Amino acid sequence: MRALWFDSELRLDDVPVPQPQKGEALIRVLAAGICNTDLEITKGYMKFTGIPGHEFVGIVEKSPDEYWVGKRVVGEINCPCGVCTYCRLEMPRHCPNRSVLGIQNRNGAFAEFLTLPVNNLHLVPNSIRDDVAVFTEPLAAAFRILEQTQITGEHRVLILGDGKLAQLVAQVIWLKTKRVQCVGKHESKVELLRRLGIPCMLYDEPVEPGADVVVEATGSKEGLTRAMELVRPEGTIVLKTTVAGTHELAMSIPVIQEIKIVGSRCGPFRPALDALAVGIVEVRPLITEIFGIEHAVQAFQRAAQPDAMKVIVHM
Amino acid sequence: MRALWFDSELRLDDVPVPQPQKGEALIRVLAAGICNTDLEITKGYMKFTGIPGHEFVGIVEKSPDEYWVGKRVVGEINCPCGVCTYCRLEMPRHCPNRSVLGIQNRNGAFAEFLTLPVNNLHLVPNSIRDDVAVFTEPLAAAFRILEQTQITGEHRVLILGDGKLAQLVAQVIWLKTKRVQCVGKHESKVELLRRLGIPCMLYDEPVEPGADVVVEATGSKEGLTRAMELVRPEGTIVLKTTVAGTHELAMSIPVIQEIKIVGSRCGPFRPALDALAVGIVEVRPLITEIFGIEHAVQAFQRAAQPDAMKVIVHM
Repeated sequence: MRALWFDSELRLDDVPVPQPQKGEALIRVLAAGICNTDLEITKGYMKFTGIPGHEFVGIVEKSPDEYWVGKRVVGEINCPCGVCTYCRLEMPRHCPNRSVLGIQNRNGAFAEFLTLPVNNLHLVPNSIRDDVAVFTEPLAAAFRILEQTQITGEHRVLILGDGKLAQLVAQVIWLKTKRVQCVGKHESKVELLRRLGIPCMLYDEPVEPGADVVVEATGSKEGLTRAMELVRPEGTIVLKTTVAGTHELAMSIPVIQEIKIVGSRCGPFRPALDALAVGIVEVRPLITEIFGIEHAVQAFQRAAQPDAMKVIVHM
Repeated sequence: MRALWFDSELRLDDVPVPQPQKGEALIRVLAAGICNTDLEITKGYMKFTGIPGHEFVGIVEKSPDEYWVGKRVVGEINCPCGVCTYCRLEMPRHCPNRSVLGIQNRNGAFAEFLTLPVNNLHLVPNSIRDDVAVFTEPLAAAFRILEQTQITGEHRVLILGDGKLAQLVAQVIWLKTKRVQCVGKHESKVELLRRLGIPCMLYDEPVEPGADVVVEATGSKEGLTRAMELVRPEGTIVLKTTVAGTHELAMSIPVIQEIKIVGSRCGPFRPALDALAVGIVEVRPLITEIFGIEHAVQAFQRAAQPDAMKVIVHM
């Protein structure tokens, strides 16, 4: 099958169709999205070699459970061992023995076929088009915030960042409170949120501090320091940015202000699929360009450009 | 009156008795404890000049409310403005206009007299001796942890540090769960906790990771990185250490592990007084030495020595 392969560099290659292991389905990939994590992987993040890609939609070709065959699905990316302490505590996303689709010990979605445990699959409602379904995984990561911190109409929330994830986060928070401001760096990107009615400002404009919740989704090292300046005492910072290396942080500030900093990663697929099915989150304006698998290397180059939002590869 | 005065250096001085302002009581100080914050102040922390000291017990000499006159009291150290947003939200400890006894814009307790708002006072039960009552303020800071994070008998908790605050924290957590380990640096200090039955180990011994809660009370910059290694995914780090300057931190770890970091400062006096009154927290073994006010400068020198725990000054 055709696949994008990373091993110190990206190349299109011809590799064997993967063999599903016990409990796994074989899925024919229809489309896959390029995420910042994929771009980081091509710089050496996670020391991953193999087929990247974890945001996908596909059709089940083989499954131990017949129900799934022929169904259009998306899939959770963490594949837990099922027997360790964290699996027994129902924290499979934190299983220390897990593989992660296209990120850790498991080939990913920029290929004609992939395998995933049947337990990871979610049926995609007919009302969701393929290019929209690809957003399920990052949108789930945005919904994770609502599991971790209570947000109601009373709360004032700032979102730092205007990239792909920040845009989804802003839309999800907007469902819960209208006291939202998004602080971005790129006029063209914040414009996408303004069109949805979400108030935005640029990074160098003065922002009123004292927010109840600040979501740090800038993807930069400076974001967390800015978040500490903008959150109120006893407020919450949700930290979405993963940057390699270390931050220089004045950690006496969160102690004196009694700030809570909550790390936030993968999230629940069900509310994400529901939101896409009924259209209360709008992802189509975030699609920058669509490439065929034969141009997947160029697709990555396009996704790395500063103005790019979501780039999608069709198989 | 005699008072300890700090202005680039500590000296015993003769200063006027303070005049209580509207709503304030005049208190004759009986005893005051030296805290790490006091030692930091003598190194320039908070740029404070004046009379340090915020852990005290005293007798009310004058009060706008007659009830208090002659009563033995301890007092909350944050003096809020009463009218700002945070005061109206009942977060007086975070009032941006507050003064703080012996720390910020208000003379403190190493003096024969001090003033505090009547609203800040708490009656000391007769069963609590003066030298024990001095621990109310730091013990309240330990109880603050129970307001911020749920701890039950199911939870495994690690306490990093073996200093004055860590000792109080360990005893408070021990009231809630017996799955506690304290990780200290000084054999003589962890021995105090072992005598209470609290399991302890030394910093260079291997500690089992995966704790539900890690309280970082080392007073050092390295503590938070260690805490991140020892807490489980989705676990909580309570951060008590305030160190000047910046930390070098790999902040991708709390994101990937979805760790919660909660800054924790001052706490509720009522449960602290209750615990001291019934003796379920044992503070007397923590008293290293008691000095008279005439030797207050030496008392600070003693408190700064590595083996010292609580040093108390009698007026």
